[in-house]
Amino acid sequence: MYIFVSRACIAAVGCLLGAVSIRADEGMWLFNAPPLDRLRQDHGAMPTAEWLLHLQQSSVRFNSGGSGAFVSADGLVITNHHVGADSLHKLGDETHDYARDGFAAATRADELKCHDLELNVLVSIEDVTARVQAAVTTGMTAEQAFPARRAAMAAIEQESLAATGLRSDVVTLYQGGAYHLYCSKKYTDVRLVFAPEQQIAFFGGDADNFEFPRYNLDICFFRAYEEGRPARVPHHLDWATGPVAEGDLVFVSGHPGHTDRGNTVAEIVSMRDHVVPFQLATLNRLEALYGAYAARGPEERRQAMGDLFGVQNGRKARQGVLAGLLDPRIMAAKRQAEVDRRKRLEDGLAGGTSPYVRIEQAQATLDGIALRHRLLEGGLAFNSRFFANARTILRAVEEQAKPSGERLREFRDSNRESLELRLFSDEPLYGEFETAKLADSLTWLATTLGGDDELVTSVLAGRSPRDRAGELIAGTGLGRRPDPKSGSAPPDSRRALYDGGPAALAASSDPMLAVAKLVDLESRSLRRIAEEADEVKRQAHAEIAASQFATEGTAMYPDATFTLRLAYGSVAGYGEAGPRRIAPITTYAGLFARAAAKRETPPFDLPARWNELRDQLKADAAFMATPLNFVSTADIIGGNSGSPVVNRDGRLVGVIFDGNIESLVLDVAYDDRRARAIAVDAAGILAALRTVYRADALVREVVVAADGRR
Amino acid sequence: MYIFVSRACIAAVGCLLGAVSIRADEGMWLFNAPPLDRLRQDHGAMPTAEWLLHLQQSSVRFNSGGSGAFVSADGLVITNHHVGADSLHKLGDETHDYARDGFAAATRADELKCHDLELNVLVSIEDVTARVQAAVTTGMTAEQAFPARRAAMAAIEQESLAATGLRSDVVTLYQGGAYHLYCSKKYTDVRLVFAPEQQIAFFGGDADNFEFPRYNLDICFFRAYEEGRPARVPHHLDWATGPVAEGDLVFVSGHPGHTDRGNTVAEIVSMRDHVVPFQLATLNRLEALYGAYAARGPEERRQAMGDLFGVQNGRKARQGVLAGLLDPRIMAAKRQAEVDRRKRLEDGLAGGTSPYVRIEQAQATLDGIALRHRLLEGGLAFNSRFFANARTILRAVEEQAKPSGERLREFRDSNRESLELRLFSDEPLYGEFETAKLADSLTWLATTLGGDDELVTSVLAGRSPRDRAGELIAGTGLGRRPDPKSGSAPPDSRRALYDGGPAALAASSDPMLAVAKLVDLESRSLRRIAEEADEVKRQAHAEIAASQFATEGTAMYPDATFTLRLAYGSVAGYGEAGPRRIAPITTYAGLFARAAAKRETPPFDLPARWNELRDQLKADAAFMATPLNFVSTADIIGGNSGSPVVNRDGRLVGVIFDGNIESLVLDVAYDDRRARAIAVDAAGILAALRTVYRADALVREVVVAADGRR
Repeated sequence: MYIFVSRACIAAVGCLLGAVSIRADEGMWLFNAPPLDRLRQDHGAMPTAEWLLHLQQSSVRFNSGGSGAFVSADGLVITNHHVGADSLHKLGDETHDYARDGFAAATRADELKCHDLELNVLVSIEDVTARVQAAVTTGMTAEQAFPARRAAMAAIEQESLAATGLRSDVVTLYQGGAYHLYCSKKYTDVRLVFAPEQQIAFFGGDADNFEFPRYNLDICFFRAYEEGRPARVPHHLDWATGPVAEGDLVFVSGHPGHTDRGNTVAEIVSMRDHVVPFQLATLNRLEALYGAYAARGPEERRQAMGDLFGVQNGRKARQGVLAGLLDPRIMAAKRQAEVDRRKRLEDGLAGGTSPYVRIEQAQATLDGIALRHRLLEGGLAFNSRFFANARTILRAVEEQAKPSGERLREFRDSNRESLELRLFSDEPLYGEFETAKLADSLTWLATTLGGDDELVTSVLAGRSPRDRAGELIAGTGLGRRPDPKSGSAPPDSRRALYDGGPAALAASSDPMLAVAKLVDLESRSLRRIAEEADEVKRQAHAEIAASQFATEGTAMYPDATFTLRLAYGSVAGYGEAGPRRIAPITTYAGLFARAAAKRETPPFDLPARWNELRDQLKADAAFMATPLNFVSTADIIGGNSGSPVVNRDGRLVGVIFDGNIESLVLDVAYDDRRARAIAVDAAGILAALRTVYRADALVREVVVAADGRR
Repeated sequence: MYIFVSRACIAAVGCLLGAVSIRADEGMWLFNAPPLDRLRQDHGAMPTAEWLLHLQQSSVRFNSGGSGAFVSADGLVITNHHVGADSLHKLGDETHDYARDGFAAATRADELKCHDLELNVLVSIEDVTARVQAAVTTGMTAEQAFPARRAAMAAIEQESLAATGLRSDVVTLYQGGAYHLYCSKKYTDVRLVFAPEQQIAFFGGDADNFEFPRYNLDICFFRAYEEGRPARVPHHLDWATGPVAEGDLVFVSGHPGHTDRGNTVAEIVSMRDHVVPFQLATLNRLEALYGAYAARGPEERRQAMGDLFGVQNGRKARQGVLAGLLDPRIMAAKRQAEVDRRKRLEDGLAGGTSPYVRIEQAQATLDGIALRHRLLEGGLAFNSRFFANARTILRAVEEQAKPSGERLREFRDSNRESLELRLFSDEPLYGEFETAKLADSLTWLATTLGGDDELVTSVLAGRSPRDRAGELIAGTGLGRRPDPKSGSAPPDSRRALYDGGPAALAASSDPMLAVAKLVDLESRSLRRIAEEADEVKRQAHAEIAASQFATEGTAMYPDATFTLRLAYGSVAGYGEAGPRRIAPITTYAGLFARAAAKRETPPFDLPARWNELRDQLKADAAFMATPLNFVSTADIIGGNSGSPVVNRDGRLVGVIFDGNIESLVLDVAYDDRRARAIAVDAAGILAALRTVYRADALVREVVVAADGRR
């Protein structure tokens, strides 16, 4: 449909890390500033505006933290199993484990409505930098500047929401160098259509996570609904007519969550020595907790598996980032790059403190409060959805009394619908599991701050953490409890408290609400300190970005911010040349070989359905040769999971589900020697749907879409 | 054989925690100071000296960290599967997994010699307090006192070794209040006789660990050899003729590893806020590491399982201790008890600083260096046996040049044989696993001290932790590598370096030895600071103990020190009266019921052998009714695993394998309301050996021993 001129060979790569200039296939580009020159130069590709708009509006953001794409005109969305997992877990109960066993709706009427899933489709982007920056005037302190900026952003968002009815978010780019208004269409009635078994979606489990070669059917289908009917969407991606081949140029459209490439050395050292080690310690603790809880029995396993996979995945991801930060070559390159930039900027300074120094100071402030900030404002000391709900209700009532622009940002009017979707979620909360989580985090609060800390003793109220957690969970009514064991728990009072305002809050005896109140004064104060330090950094980064634009040009991309980005790259293997080189594409034959090599010991076992069909599948040469996963040099990071991978024709050739372990360093620096994005091959998906799952309606829907109307 | 006079009813219990006086069934008593009055008073039991000596000399210490007992005149030893696990793992290879699959020697010739297992049998105890205390004279600084005391202890040990040929250890009791010389017969040729499958030994896994009711056949048999033949041992325990019943008085003879009941509040606060949280963070990290490594495949699982179980067990144990420390009632009781004692002591002080204050100061010193001390001297930064071997060799050569009394304590002459047994162990070391462990611990070193710390950068030598670990493990020859993948690794050079002295060390290019050298200066200096602070505490505790003996009498027991102790208690259930009360004895019927209730999902599945016999076993009413596990109020702690439990007749009725979760607080305070010691029932063991394992020779050996000769 959309035509590209010619096909360039894969750019020869291997530049040193941390070089200042952008290197081959690097970049998570803004859709309003695509890398047209580089695409033409390196790949002979010239995407048209129409091609870009079609890809943009076919792309879907999962607000729970991933990406996806429309693949039929009837609102059918493809993403990863692991992106859908949050919904799959919440939909389960004692007799249904959709995450483990998969799901297939026989008809549209059987599609299962998710409890709190919101999808966004980016409709427009507008540069509002000037208006946001104008709110902050010379001479303002950070204490004055932060609320002024927040108010300007909220006003822009509110105006946009009123004018368009679209979700409107002002996004901070280049760490404060630019501000863009993103308007998105929002879908809050989203239903589960199809998911394979966990065991094939996540074949190889934690062991193979972030590894390649790989053999994962990590997919899941949802459908967006409007007014109770499947949404008629203006754009969706057609399925490609054939699989990818080595050397193919591919594009990835998705929502990379967060990168730190623009950070100064001071910020990166803090990441290396404080932030990431702290995250890892937390993830290790939670992995032990969830693992132990899951081992108690099959029902406990079902309750905890979603959280367990999440922390295992996070642990491995953070380990990868940390390995990069501890690689002296990477740090040396970062330092070298900063020396040059910094000198240029500081030489041109008319006066005042260098922005690099201001960032260093702000970072020291942040490091100083980090522990209590994470425990209280980050909520890590109160690891229970009941607590999160309590705090949301408490603050919503307090913030509602202020003008929208002066509220804590998440309580602005334009965000209300999304906030309420989450707060009033029908997600089931299990008393024993919530108690185990809360007891663990209260224990950790006590040991981190010390058992005699005043906050600790007042939170624990003379009980041990375990007893206190039991009492809080047993006594709170701030969530839905389907657990028959919690029959004596108070009824769900979220709505009454939220709607009841200050009087209802004051009259409530909910013990979790009392804890939220108890810590909120310090928590809000820590947040204010952090926001002001961030404001200092934002202003400093704006100066650095301006200096960089001036000397290096504006043909650069900002760090990832969980907004829609365009990446591109080649399907390419990696490693030393010769027999140990890793080929870029795996097949179903490889899946069976890998399972056999591991004696089908979990996590290398196959689901029952696959075992039953084993002989038939292995006799089917075409099936066995079908590509299952492939890697490319596209520049991705966490949040890109579920991102559509398209070819030059804009047709779907795959769905990103992972990066290899060498790609995790992409958080701080791009490197295409060994870093690769891993996708499920679209041809492999169709083959499984047809041959293994006999999901004929689904196949018809995507294939008719692809081969019929267009 | 040995007769007790009458049978008292179970002591009514329920006193408040932390009361000063010793309460019912409390105590880990010295065999040279048994609680005769209490036994007579509370239980009408009057064990004779002969009875005590027989139990003492039938008891066996596993130097790897557990307890056991001789159960035949031919040196047959019973212990727990989890105590034997270290040896089971080391004996395994790519095609044998004895820990998982169990082992049964068909004949004595088939018994498998362990790589580095040492058993000790306590022969005599002598009070040498006066001589040790005399070495430290008034006016000595800690810097002078510590080596003086060390030299006195080494001299006593050396004399004893020369005179008796027995392993001779001067043991510090009452935190420094007394010193006893323990002489033990040592067995270093120990062979594996029988082990059941891990799945029945550890049925319920981590989920049921430290829980009750319980259904674990946690046993293992070894045999001590002398001069290549089964050792003829003068004492062994006869099997009881019937199972225990609720209310029975039982005795436990074993080696509780460590308790902290005599610690001052300052020391306990440090445990609560620093030591235990740090241990937990370490264990959580290692649990994630070993779990992830084990998930890579069946062979990796075999390599890592021993370590994984160890850290899971440690994690749950430390969580229990921490829960106790964070229980305000326990801390309040500790504080209250100290107030009274302290006042009494300080009122009587002629002058000088209160020992409580000196302990507080020494604890502050210890807390100040704790992190680097654990990383370096504790070796936590270098988590590989290769490193431990490198350090042992390095220091052995250096220390050898000094008189025995001036050496680091583990290098004293009287300990040489034990040290060499461990250093030259045939334990297999796997390159990939050692690399994963070392990379993880080096990463942790770097993040804990900061990536720019001087020690960190010199240890890493310009590499990332992962690369550096790979290089060190690939290049070291300080261990045995059976791994075919490590074919290009250097040959085992432990013996040559150890025997070669300073010249060989200087000439060696072993990279792990170089790292051990690099950190040894700081490591030794940290150790010296810690030892001097400990000396300050030891002197202060001696004063506190003297004051306590004077006012409260000497009928008390010292904190556990991994030396032989006698505990006693009643077979007793716990919990509220009524249907929820936990009965003290479980049966094989309960095992099958528990498995069914958990849908036989791992870790609640049964081994293949048990599944095959399932119908037969379930039809065998006598088997199903046989006791499997039971609990008693005996006062135990980690290290007691494998301890024989005997009845008034001194006959074996069980083998301790665990305490319930409520017992973990016994580290700091005894509490018999809910704390219970868990044992495998001796009758249950015989039933399984007969009916499930058909281990006729083994049954004959223990039953003939019990019913024949005596």
